[in-house]
Amino acid sequence: MNDRSRDNRPPLAPLDSAVVPRFAEPATFMRVPHVGLDAGLDIALAGVPFDLGATGRNGQRAGPAQVREMSRLIRQVNASTKVAPFRLARVGDVGDAPVSVFDLMGTLDAITGFYDRIATAGVAPVSAGGDHTVALPIMRALARKGPIACIQFDAHADTLDELVGNRFNHATPFRRAVEEGVVDPKRMVQIGLRGTRYSDEDIQYGYNAGFRVITMDDYEAMGRDAVIAEARRVVGDAPVYVTYDIDGLDPVYCPGTSAPEPGGLSMRDSQVMIRGLQGLNVIGGDVCEVLPALDPAGHTALNAANLMFEILCITAEAVARRRR
Amino acid sequence: MNDRSRDNRPPLAPLDSAVVPRFAEPATFMRVPHVGLDAGLDIALAGVPFDLGATGRNGQRAGPAQVREMSRLIRQVNASTKVAPFRLARVGDVGDAPVSVFDLMGTLDAITGFYDRIATAGVAPVSAGGDHTVALPIMRALARKGPIACIQFDAHADTLDELVGNRFNHATPFRRAVEEGVVDPKRMVQIGLRGTRYSDEDIQYGYNAGFRVITMDDYEAMGRDAVIAEARRVVGDAPVYVTYDIDGLDPVYCPGTSAPEPGGLSMRDSQVMIRGLQGLNVIGGDVCEVLPALDPAGHTALNAANLMFEILCITAEAVARRRR
Amino acid sequence: MNDRSRDNRPPLAPLDSAVVPRFAEPATFMRVPHVGLDAGLDIALAGVPFDLGATGRNGQRAGPAQVREMSRLIRQVNASTKVAPFRLARVGDVGDAPVSVFDLMGTLDAITGFYDRIATAGVAPVSAGGDHTVALPIMRALARKGPIACIQFDAHADTLDELVGNRFNHATPFRRAVEEGVVDPKRMVQIGLRGTRYSDEDIQYGYNAGFRVITMDDYEAMGRDAVIAEARRVVGDAPVYVTYDIDGLDPVYCPGTSAPEPGGLSMRDSQVMIRGLQGLNVIGGDVCEVLPALDPAGHTALNAANLMFEILCITAEAVARRRR
Amino acid sequence: MNDRSRDNRPPLAPLDSAVVPRFAEPATFMRVPHVGLDAGLDIALAGVPFDLGATGRNGQRAGPAQVREMSRLIRQVNASTKVAPFRLARVGDVGDAPVSVFDLMGTLDAITGFYDRIATAGVAPVSAGGDHTVALPIMRALARKGPIACIQFDAHADTLDELVGNRFNHATPFRRAVEEGVVDPKRMVQIGLRGTRYSDEDIQYGYNAGFRVITMDDYEAMGRDAVIAEARRVVGDAPVYVTYDIDGLDPVYCPGTSAPEPGGLSMRDSQVMIRGLQGLNVIGGDVCEVLPALDPAGHTALNAANLMFEILCITAEAVARRRR
Amino acid sequence: MNDRSRDNRPPLAPLDSAVVPRFAEPATFMRVPHVGLDAGLDIALAGVPFDLGATGRNGQRAGPAQVREMSRLIRQVNASTKVAPFRLARVGDVGDAPVSVFDLMGTLDAITGFYDRIATAGVAPVSAGGDHTVALPIMRALARKGPIACIQFDAHADTLDELVGNRFNHATPFRRAVEEGVVDPKRMVQIGLRGTRYSDEDIQYGYNAGFRVITMDDYEAMGRDAVIAEARRVVGDAPVYVTYDIDGLDPVYCPGTSAPEPGGLSMRDSQVMIRGLQGLNVIGGDVCEVLPALDPAGHTALNAANLMFEILCITAEAVARRRR
Amino acid sequence: MNDRSRDNRPPLAPLDSAVVPRFAEPATFMRVPHVGLDAGLDIALAGVPFDLGATGRNGQRAGPAQVREMSRLIRQVNASTKVAPFRLARVGDVGDAPVSVFDLMGTLDAITGFYDRIATAGVAPVSAGGDHTVALPIMRALARKGPIACIQFDAHADTLDELVGNRFNHATPFRRAVEEGVVDPKRMVQIGLRGTRYSDEDIQYGYNAGFRVITMDDYEAMGRDAVIAEARRVVGDAPVYVTYDIDGLDPVYCPGTSAPEPGGLSMRDSQVMIRGLQGLNVIGGDVCEVLPALDPAGHTALNAANLMFEILCITAEAVARRRR
Repeated sequence: MNDRSRDNRPPLAPLDSAVVPRFAEPATFMRVPHVGLDAGLDIALAGVPFDLGATGRNGQRAGPAQVREMSRLIRQVNASTKVAPFRLARVGDVGDAPVSVFDLMGTLDAITGFYDRIATAGVAPVSAGGDHTVALPIMRALARKGPIACIQFDAHADTLDELVGNRFNHATPFRRAVEEGVVDPKRMVQIGLRGTRYSDEDIQYGYNAGFRVITMDDYEAMGRDAVIAEARRVVGDAPVYVTYDIDGLDPVYCPGTSAPEPGGLSMRDSQVMIRGLQGLNVIGGDVCEVLPALDPAGHTALNAANLMFEILCITAEAVARRRR
Repeated sequence: MNDRSRDNRPPLAPLDSAVVPRFAEPATFMRVPHVGLDAGLDIALAGVPFDLGATGRNGQRAGPAQVREMSRLIRQVNASTKVAPFRLARVGDVGDAPVSVFDLMGTLDAITGFYDRIATAGVAPVSAGGDHTVALPIMRALARKGPIACIQFDAHADTLDELVGNRFNHATPFRRAVEEGVVDPKRMVQIGLRGTRYSDEDIQYGYNAGFRVITMDDYEAMGRDAVIAEARRVVGDAPVYVTYDIDGLDPVYCPGTSAPEPGGLSMRDSQVMIRGLQGLNVIGGDVCEVLPALDPAGHTALNAANLMFEILCITAEAVARRRR
Repeated sequence: MNDRSRDNRPPLAPLDSAVVPRFAEPATFMRVPHVGLDAGLDIALAGVPFDLGATGRNGQRAGPAQVREMSRLIRQVNASTKVAPFRLARVGDVGDAPVSVFDLMGTLDAITGFYDRIATAGVAPVSAGGDHTVALPIMRALARKGPIACIQFDAHADTLDELVGNRFNHATPFRRAVEEGVVDPKRMVQIGLRGTRYSDEDIQYGYNAGFRVITMDDYEAMGRDAVIAEARRVVGDAPVYVTYDIDGLDPVYCPGTSAPEPGGLSMRDSQVMIRGLQGLNVIGGDVCEVLPALDPAGHTALNAANLMFEILCITAEAVARRRR
Repeated sequence: MNDRSRDNRPPLAPLDSAVVPRFAEPATFMRVPHVGLDAGLDIALAGVPFDLGATGRNGQRAGPAQVREMSRLIRQVNASTKVAPFRLARVGDVGDAPVSVFDLMGTLDAITGFYDRIATAGVAPVSAGGDHTVALPIMRALARKGPIACIQFDAHADTLDELVGNRFNHATPFRRAVEEGVVDPKRMVQIGLRGTRYSDEDIQYGYNAGFRVITMDDYEAMGRDAVIAEARRVVGDAPVYVTYDIDGLDPVYCPGTSAPEPGGLSMRDSQVMIRGLQGLNVIGGDVCEVLPALDPAGHTALNAANLMFEILCITAEAVARRRR
Repeated sequence: MNDRSRDNRPPLAPLDSAVVPRFAEPATFMRVPHVGLDAGLDIALAGVPFDLGATGRNGQRAGPAQVREMSRLIRQVNASTKVAPFRLARVGDVGDAPVSVFDLMGTLDAITGFYDRIATAGVAPVSAGGDHTVALPIMRALARKGPIACIQFDAHADTLDELVGNRFNHATPFRRAVEEGVVDPKRMVQIGLRGTRYSDEDIQYGYNAGFRVITMDDYEAMGRDAVIAEARRVVGDAPVYVTYDIDGLDPVYCPGTSAPEPGGLSMRDSQVMIRGLQGLNVIGGDVCEVLPALDPAGHTALNAANLMFEILCITAEAVARRRR
Repeated sequence: MNDRSRDNRPPLAPLDSAVVPRFAEPATFMRVPHVGLDAGLDIALAGVPFDLGATGRNGQRAGPAQVREMSRLIRQVNASTKVAPFRLARVGDVGDAPVSVFDLMGTLDAITGFYDRIATAGVAPVSAGGDHTVALPIMRALARKGPIACIQFDAHADTLDELVGNRFNHATPFRRAVEEGVVDPKRMVQIGLRGTRYSDEDIQYGYNAGFRVITMDDYEAMGRDAVIAEARRVVGDAPVYVTYDIDGLDPVYCPGTSAPEPGGLSMRDSQVMIRGLQGLNVIGGDVCEVLPALDPAGHTALNAANLMFEILCITAEAVARRRR
């Protein structure tokens, strides 16, 4: 039985690398067709080429392009979980959210609008940023019916009240998300926090708000399995969004990012953790903060593409489950 | 008057970088739409991700992808000639020619077939290689009505009889083209030849066959204007194909190529020469031998994209002229 | 006689590379001391780490840091003109202009304020950008007494009225400068313009306003000596600011820039042209658009440092002349 | 007693880096002499500059050259096992196997012939590829007396029946080896398998054929010591060949490879595992899939050289043991 | 209470990245002021741009400059230990030790003199090398009152008697330190030793002299906590110097170093170990062997800066403790 | 007739790239055999892996290795002059001169000794450095019968009396050569001098001593043909050594060098100039100052290999002429 054929829509498959070699044809995310939102998708892969929220090294605006290019190396079946997302769900590349390079707040609204259209169409988005600010407008669109759960992999808490006098930037999205009622702080999990800090207060907001904060020290003390179990417990059956700031990884895995913090997660641990979230009510996710100019050969983007594939797999499995 | 609106076909414009920033959306050649051959094109931009003809450093199969990516930086009007190719002609990216990584001869046939379909549709192709072997199957399709003229920018003559026991590779296409009646040797111009040679005979075939051979020493002695005039004289009003092996440039302009030969053409000289071909009966062209792995930051591909744009401009101008 | 000792201020010399090796000690511009504006300077070397005016590839905010680092390779005497700027003038590194990464317009004002303090102190600034927007606030401070002349080396005219709905960015500073009465359009020279364009109108403003526009085609037709003579004629004895957008160079000289345009100026030509401006009433200058992430090894920044040294030399010579 | 002096052959030692600095003299594998097969070797270090079996990113043909260059950093004694291979055995660099860039099947035969001469001379080969296809012709030569055991470190099983219509390429060698009676499937161990897959069947062949398949998930579950023990158990006292596809490593250790798969082995784990094979009846080995153009600084090749050294050590120890 | 204000000296704080962005202003170590030794410091950050002790790949002379540049990314509070070194102690960048590129022995004396002045002023130095030879002259200055303890993280023992006929180079400093009475061999700990060796004797000196030698094999067998405990036990309450040769890390963390040895420590393990030394009587430390030309993007230097920060934290904590 | 067969020595040919692909086999200079001095050579290609004479960025010790590697791309016939050096002369790679990394003066003596053996054997050396100091010991060996002529391509005069208190380093060799009677100052030509200077006196020594100094300004004013003629006139029929410091080129051609000076020679100009020296009594030459770590992809070394080939051609032609 063809898992995809729940209705009469024509199939929507990625290019088969055994027919069209990986290096051929224009790059889309994981080689799926570049389509419009009217293509009857279950899952939309999208880019958010935005970096006006960056306070240090910038250039994350070019992230989606490089992730598309490196995602040529992704195949179609998850070796560990056996999930075949392109069979479980109709997946297309819907292009990039609209952005203006001169209007931070206006672009956040435009991104919200773009994802509102996706969400309204009943499509689950899996995205590539952009700086991490973009998680806020994406989650806004996904939380129209009420606060959602969120699992954040990151070196930084991104919960400052403001930075350099600005309240909407890559250091603040998850605080804003709580304040706006987008994320339920009791169902918020942060994994991988570490790194030198501006002050003792840098990550305190999460503790105060009720987040489940798992620093790298906690991660190591608990062990990976316990971390997975804890994330599942906190989230429960709430709709959950999975956001991966690529700097959650140790810098050897992400030379191309803005604020690398040594001593981070490995790709292996990250893959296993995301796989461990299978069965949750996943409604989408993103991988952010790829900065191609700092890694022109694309090693960071390759890891981002693989993490995006893992998030796609648990999203597709949830989509298929919800369909039943 | 809108030059493009000679009929009722809907317009076909590249993304406007003042609306959709250069870094956004999946990469196509010069940001034109990715379309099928049924899109009513005047000019098809195409990739030929092939490198089985390479005898030394390889990886040219990834050339089209990187040229697409770097061509984001191309805008819409030629500053020197004022040609606006996307207004003069309907231009689309038709994707890549089909290739097999295990079948040199079969792929050459498949490429010929791909370009036969383009030529049959009355569309002029401007392509990105691939190793320089691909000029042969492309020109075959364009010469179905008789031998064509050809202007080749290159460090190497590519007119050996065979190399390493093989007769169809990047060292032989222009000899094969003459033998097959694809190119009229009396209307063949080679510009930029230089570099150490396997033997004294490396470039002799062209002289014997009647090519107008202009080595780098000749180029310097004649001067650029005289070279342009001579190329125009030799080609006359014949349909002419323009093929640019990126190694015609000095290696500082093409670090990402297989066989760089110091002491070559500059981009300025190349741009001015191609512009100088305006008014000829141009039927298409290509830029070959971009090898992205040797230049991950894409400087070579950026130059290739600009040369492709110059070839596009003279092709579009010829298309518009032929239409009148 | 010590040229510097026109008064009792203690000498202010760069580190001597024959004593303190080039690779030692923190990097300042050309190894001069890092001082405050109260150091009795004749010339201030300054950075403007700003890139909110960039519409494409960004990261020019890191330009001053890399130019400082690569300027370790600069020595003390100009081989061609024999000018020894650190003997002719008291030269210090005054650090960077204040910037906010979230406030384009506010930062332009802050930059203006920074250079107002420099200008008020009777100090001539030679700066490293930053995207080219920064030329506007710098020139504002230098034109408090009336419109100044300007010589701009650049691939792009930077005279659009707006881009992406914004009127203050790297595509507009020289139009704004004329409108604001900062630059006298009759004494404005643009050298090196070229590259694909958004529209036919991209550079038209300058022609209309009375600029002396010298495109690359013009440059080649006139020859370098004539270009120098023409620039001197247009500027006359007006106070003149020299602004060098690094993309005026051919991309082989500036792989690390936002909008490279093949077919540009060489370093040799640029050096000779700036030297040819000696004797004009130079009041400062800048080198902009170095984007380090695209050239981590610093070749672009090394060229920028050398161009900055050439501008420093003609400024120091003018400073010494005005002093007499 | 000098371990090497079992006969009257003159000694054959690598250059001593305490006399001839590491950076001096032409590069050979680990600085041993470049000799002919008539040099009375025990172990031949050889290159196989072949990549016609690659379906994606290519350029592995340049692998042996870069591994030679980076192996300058290898010294002479194994710190963990105390094995000093150049004292235990006569080791020389016999150059590269003959290859044709236009003849996949012919080159596989030529490689077989090259290793037949090595094997016939009683010499154990330790090689640097080349894409992983080359393991097949090498093992053919080593299995003239009957099927051998094989331990394969790899992200991919390389046991497809065909890919892109071809049966002899980097995705098939170990299936062919079983079919040809070269490898005994009951004594075949695969370690490190992971990564996205073309289909659910990608690695199934091994299970069906009786391989001991240890995926990354298995590896982690079993622990390194158990994996070593299991590999030793499966191989027993059979002559065993050790083949290391560099992509068995996590991509941070092998940026220069064709098909990197995040979540792989570490160098530490790999070194310890190979050391753990000491005492087996090792008859040779290889390290494949180094692709220098993707890692010009040679980090991948340095790791490859170190793995090659580990394989050399267990081979030399086995050679010495068999001699006794 | 302000920890720094134990006396009337004006505060000495690093630039606040929330006010002056990270990319702005000339680079000093961790953005602290560049001051003289008369600034009333508790801790001096210093560079030692020396590499005449290198026998292989060189260029470590440029290490301090790149570590300064990358240390822009360091913030002010240690996330794990909560130590805020710039509040606990007055910390300044005192520039670089004097070096001569032609005089190995003379420069070692000059370095000793530089650190004598630091030590005499009661200031604790935390330094960036330079090749590892520099640990010797630094420790000499710190051991004027008697032998000190030393904890060395390193792939190599650096205890040869001579190399290439020379007794003072990067392979010998810790043997010389013992011979000179600078280091107490009974309080010397070496962690991370591994790699191929010149001979069986390479690391034997330490065992004979009474060092606590913990090879990578030992490290893995003991576990990180036991290693920390053992280091603390050996050192006891002696004044202890912490020296980190960056090649103690696995090469993925230090592509820019002279003698990378696969299979090394991770940044996570290194950070946790240094934090585990808190409470010891730390008198200073260094991070050596960063070789920027081999890693122009600065990943190695970023790790070095983070390790330097960790050493700074335990030094600052000890300084504050000793003050009480 | 075989030009090489003037006697009974077996032929000595480079690997034929049409049989053994360029990427195969260990790298020697231009793929000639690695032989001893007893091989009956006419011309010895040699490396001098020395950089103790460098005062700034170092690592030139790795130059010969990278030039060997990149010289794989050299073929066998000079396209412009038709000289086929490997037919005109017996050419071998004799390996590297002996060096000590700790003994500047001793190594200069050792290099002299190495070249004395070459010269005594009647062999003409063409070498790859190494920093430019090495020209001195090489020329000493070639001038045993009296002062020789010298043509130096360089950005710097290298005629200081001392630098940093040392008289034998990369800034002094040509002054020492004159003082030692190695070079006849009346037959010394310097071409390409430019760049910022330590003082007004930097290049004055040559003028005083009678050198024919041709700065870049002179070069441009005279024109290339006149420079060639002048060099030929000055040298006359004296035995002449040709030394090319790679920084004579503009930095775009030599990113991998210690002291790049913008505004330099092009490869085209350099090639034509060296060819223009054909017919002189050439006795050898070198190309120095390639610093591989600053250009890991080897573009600089490729240019160096090509320049070395040009020098080889005029040397081989002179060898053949002298033989007649």
